Amino acid sequence: MKWLEDEIIKRGKILDGNILKVNSFLNHQLDIELLNKMTLLWFDHFKRKHPTKILTIEASGIALATLLAQRFNIPALFAKKGSPSNLGEAYHTDIYSYTRNEYQTISVEKTYLNENDSVLIVDDFLATGEAARGLINICKNANCEIVGIGTVIEKGFQHGGDKLREDGFDVYSLEIIESMDSSTGKINFR
Amino acid sequence: MKWLEDEIIKRGKILDGNILKVNSFLNHQLDIELLNKMTLLWFDHFKRKHPTKILTIEASGIALATLLAQRFNIPALFAKKGSPSNLGEAYHTDIYSYTRNEYQTISVEKTYLNENDSVLIVDDFLATGEAARGLINICKNANCEIVGIGTVIEKGFQHGGDKLREDGFDVYSLEIIESMDSSTGKINFR
Repeated sequence: MKWLEDEIIKRGKILDGNILKVNSFLNHQLDIELLNKMTLLWFDHFKRKHPTKILTIEASGIALATLLAQRFNIPALFAKKGSPSNLGEAYHTDIYSYTRNEYQTISVEKTYLNENDSVLIVDDFLATGEAARGLINICKNANCEIVGIGTVIEKGFQHGGDKLREDGFDVYSLEIIESMDSSTGKINFR
Repeated sequence: MKWLEDEIIKRGKILDGNILKVNSFLNHQLDIELLNKMTLLWFDHFKRKHPTKILTIEASGIALATLLAQRFNIPALFAKKGSPSNLGEAYHTDIYSYTRNEYQTISVEKTYLNENDSVLIVDDFLATGEAARGLINICKNANCEIVGIGTVIEKGFQHGGDKLREDGFDVYSLEIIESMDSSTGKINFR
């Protein structure tokens, strides 16, 4: 998507450690018009799979999940970090956070996912695929179908998306970055 | 709002410790149609104040901020919990979390708030007002105007909203709960 590449180049910032900072429109300040253009692409790609629920993980996935759920006219659901004391019976799984260098539990109440659900997973970034794997685990525990995985920016050089595709998942990333260089600011898209 | 009282009574659950659990539509699973009805009420109330930005705090406020920002056609911005290492120069403030029994830092990058902004603060709940006070502090540090505070459910018996109104803020809570009883499940609205 030319327009999205342009936005990433114009408004993104490459930090050391292969971090692409897109705080100006995707995961701190939210440019709703832009997010709506993103969710339209997911909608067109996944609509014939008739998802019943959009699943994401707090916090950066929530705005995207909300706008996509609005298009499909279905509920969104976000996995909570930790094991909040006021959750009922819940599915839990641990995901590894490379930025925090530790495992973190995520939780979804059992009431909100079951074998009749067809789940579309969305998130802002896909790198090693840890977060997506965590959400997949939860869906598997709930015996629900996973119709696909939508992400905005996939870090192709971390290969999480490739492995998910090898495992048969329909992964639709709006942009896949093959390499980026914090010294020159240059981004190569796949 | 009769329809919202009905939803809270039908779908909410009162837990010990004055906790009202509305995970089925507001802060775990998200009923987008219902959330859109909520944001329309805020929009009508605050539109003549012409906000330039919607400000909330991760995670439960994000869906509401997103849908309200969509109505106003302005950006949303969510304060991040902690002091993420990839934030640039940021405003920080500490808020007390009664559920965690500890202070927690929240952060907003300085780039995204300045003296030209008219900020509308929104969140799902208003109880002691700690989260709102934190966001107000950040706005004050950024020298921006606060046009009002929109919340879905105010726990009137914890008086955070009353104090904010005494301080001159335009606080518009869609529902104010005067009391609730976990043994009977009875909720009294103001």
